[in-house]
Amino acid sequence: MHKILVIGIGAGSPDYMTVQAIDALNRVDVFFMPDKGAEKAALRHVREQILERFIQGRGYEEVGVEIPQRRPAGDDYRGAVDDWHAALTANYDLLFDRHLVDDKIGGFLVWGDPMLYDSTLRILGNLDVEVEVIPGITAVQVLAARHGIAINRIGEPVLLTTGRKAKAGLPDGVDSVVMLDGEQAFAHVDGDYDIFWGAYLGMKDEILVSGRLADVKDEIERKRAEARAAHGWIMDTYLLRQRT
Amino acid sequence: MHKILVIGIGAGSPDYMTVQAIDALNRVDVFFMPDKGAEKAALRHVREQILERFIQGRGYEEVGVEIPQRRPAGDDYRGAVDDWHAALTANYDLLFDRHLVDDKIGGFLVWGDPMLYDSTLRILGNLDVEVEVIPGITAVQVLAARHGIAINRIGEPVLLTTGRKAKAGLPDGVDSVVMLDGEQAFAHVDGDYDIFWGAYLGMKDEILVSGRLADVKDEIERKRAEARAAHGWIMDTYLLRQRT
Repeated sequence: MHKILVIGIGAGSPDYMTVQAIDALNRVDVFFMPDKGAEKAALRHVREQILERFIQGRGYEEVGVEIPQRRPAGDDYRGAVDDWHAALTANYDLLFDRHLVDDKIGGFLVWGDPMLYDSTLRILGNLDVEVEVIPGITAVQVLAARHGIAINRIGEPVLLTTGRKAKAGLPDGVDSVVMLDGEQAFAHVDGDYDIFWGAYLGMKDEILVSGRLADVKDEIERKRAEARAAHGWIMDTYLLRQRT
Repeated sequence: MHKILVIGIGAGSPDYMTVQAIDALNRVDVFFMPDKGAEKAALRHVREQILERFIQGRGYEEVGVEIPQRRPAGDDYRGAVDDWHAALTANYDLLFDRHLVDDKIGGFLVWGDPMLYDSTLRILGNLDVEVEVIPGITAVQVLAARHGIAINRIGEPVLLTTGRKAKAGLPDGVDSVVMLDGEQAFAHVDGDYDIFWGAYLGMKDEILVSGRLADVKDEIERKRAEARAAHGWIMDTYLLRQRT
């Protein structure tokens, strides 16, 4: 049975690598590197930096993984994702048999942590492989650290969700919500909130904005549009907290 | 103005320390070490291990912090916590002035990550100090990694909450819930769930149980009670996921 290490590399900076993740890098023979296209070139660069900096005195292979195009979701988001996962699963199955000969160990470098809005574990779960998971610092944690805040109020819950979901309304009784995708759902939220927003978190181009949502919404939208135009891509996340 | 580094040290194992956290340790002159009593001796031991292993070629001081007793919450959980924070704030104010002379840098080692169910940032926010936050791997992440799972379903939200809150009912429309305290709220949840439970996560005595809640509930309660009796303390957390 093939052995695969799924390694959380943290979000943004190689300095978020843990001791455990560094040890894991040094056990991998073949890194499978999904290529998500030009907009993620900056993320690929962080991955390369991590391999060069932390792997010492041993050789390793890098194998590109072609990511099949995901069909437009339309009304069937789950169906589109399921089909896409099936295509990826078939891809990985072939690649593992081809590259993981002689008990070689495979590895995936996952941005942030494999536990949160990442499909690697789900896809590997379809295959008969032995998986070991190494956690990493998520963008949520970098966001909170850079703003110097806790994400929860005292004893209160926190909802992690996506812009897609939030646009359909936030659940009652949850005053702190972290958004984990690129949709600017904050522009569509009703109610009186504070927002703690960050883009390119942990990277040299990091941008932070915080304040009362009604006051800083336009500033965030403007800065976001400008940065996206300048870099050709953007990754951002934010916490909304109901004002009391 | 005093400078304080609030360093997330991860949950359970010193191997969860990040490169950034190790660098931060080596900038601190005085570590303030809250003493939470005998039940947390094992956690104090991990902190000591971390200092010994990762600080190199420089001296540092350790200052114990007496934690005032929190009065029983009764019906006023927030009020009890507020009073307790006020007492801690006064404590820290004195300690910083006494120990952080000549621009010495202070440090706190926070179990997991300072962003999640930890009061350090909230207390320091009451004081006129410069704070830098370093994220760390939370118990939630260790739980997910050790069970080899993502905490969210595809595109679906996740609620982080406490047993105290969950006993009053879980919100609609959220199928994945992570519990972050020691109350066995899973025993009081209505509905058909899978549970992924872990105790002493990341430590040598780690215990993991997963399965359909109705099937493994008794096993978890038994193992939890036995382990607590054997060790004199327990820290556990779990994910509940609605079965479809």
